[in-house]
Amino acid sequence: MTTRIIAKDMKRRLLLVSNSTLHGGGYLEHCQQQIKDFFGKGVARILFIPYALCDRDGYAKTARDKFNSLGGGNTFRLLKCLYDNNVLSEINKRVLQDGVPYMGSSAGTNVSTVSINTTNDMPIVYPPSFNAIGLVPFNINPHFLDTDPNSRHMGETREQRIIQYHEEPDTTSVLGLREGSMLLVEGNKATLLGTCKARLFTRGKPTTEFESGSDLSFLLTDRQ
Amino acid sequence: MTTRIIAKDMKRRLLLVSNSTLHGGGYLEHCQQQIKDFFGKGVARILFIPYALCDRDGYAKTARDKFNSLGGGNTFRLLKCLYDNNVLSEINKRVLQDGVPYMGSSAGTNVSTVSINTTNDMPIVYPPSFNAIGLVPFNINPHFLDTDPNSRHMGETREQRIIQYHEEPDTTSVLGLREGSMLLVEGNKATLLGTCKARLFTRGKPTTEFESGSDLSFLLTDRQ
Repeated sequence: MTTRIIAKDMKRRLLLVSNSTLHGGGYLEHCQQQIKDFFGKGVARILFIPYALCDRDGYAKTARDKFNSLGGGNTFRLLKCLYDNNVLSEINKRVLQDGVPYMGSSAGTNVSTVSINTTNDMPIVYPPSFNAIGLVPFNINPHFLDTDPNSRHMGETREQRIIQYHEEPDTTSVLGLREGSMLLVEGNKATLLGTCKARLFTRGKPTTEFESGSDLSFLLTDRQ
Repeated sequence: MTTRIIAKDMKRRLLLVSNSTLHGGGYLEHCQQQIKDFFGKGVARILFIPYALCDRDGYAKTARDKFNSLGGGNTFRLLKCLYDNNVLSEINKRVLQDGVPYMGSSAGTNVSTVSINTTNDMPIVYPPSFNAIGLVPFNINPHFLDTDPNSRHMGETREQRIIQYHEEPDTTSVLGLREGSMLLVEGNKATLLGTCKARLFTRGKPTTEFESGSDLSFLLTDRQ
């Protein structure tokens, strides 16, 4: 765990998707073109990490059928399994040093960041740490949901939860990726893709909205 | 941590509320009568635990103004502070052995149970364990939310999340307390109070709905 690189790395190639399924569409259908572009023609084998769901064989089959790598499901379960199998440092090294492309959606996006502190999932298992793979120096909130002014539900809104996170010391920026959006990282360049805007929360600064197509490379320069 | 009692205890008196505020009402307004009945006239002092929100003084003032004890806010922050201050065993002992009444709402309800594995909150801080005070031998999901068939959001429903929890070994029953409902525990008797039904999830059994007024004492007999 001590050798992981959380840094600018020229080789890194990441596709971090908010969600596996978009309302009205099939599994990974909404990001099909981006996945094709991302993996290109040179990729013969994909390592699929099915830890986030209980039925791993069924999950792997779904992914295999779609011929794609991804990671949805429960973030706590996924991270705990990555620790149990002692593969966080290895994934970090393979992606940042060797340039192996990494794609995740939802839970798989959460574990690629600094920590899982901004997941939406229920803490069904206890991982040895909330620190994650650290392929980027900030956090992501997948399935980001705008506050519904008509809701009668009194649980905290997503924005309130992220603000609570920023009340804690040493917390990173949080990119709220709405369903349908994703982040493409190539070396030190980060681009917002997909069908909608993303919302950026930075401690002590006003929140900002970014249109699809925006260059978000500034998020990669330092721990935000 | 080793001396905590998770058992049938005749002295215990708990009021575990789903939520602090109900849509359209003021702070703790919806359970005002139950709180009066619960504390009665003999209570002169209340210990308020403000750990779940960042602004503890403001939070304590809100509670003092309302002359009530409660615990809402972020469950991870609350539990971590209870551990940091080493008070879990003491609260367990005072409530189960000495009969000091305990009232919690939302986060304060979560930490009174076996574990915080079924909180809805964002894991903004890392507590040394998810094990909680253990005043009852099961878990609660406060702010329980029915699945909205019209939702276009693709994040897991509350029911799916609790089912994921039950895919893990050694998991307890989960009582889904909708907003407006609460559980009154007096010794070995548990009664559902409030304005709506509650939903019980038990591993390997069909889920069940209970009307307000139901006797749920069977939940106290053993670790469920």
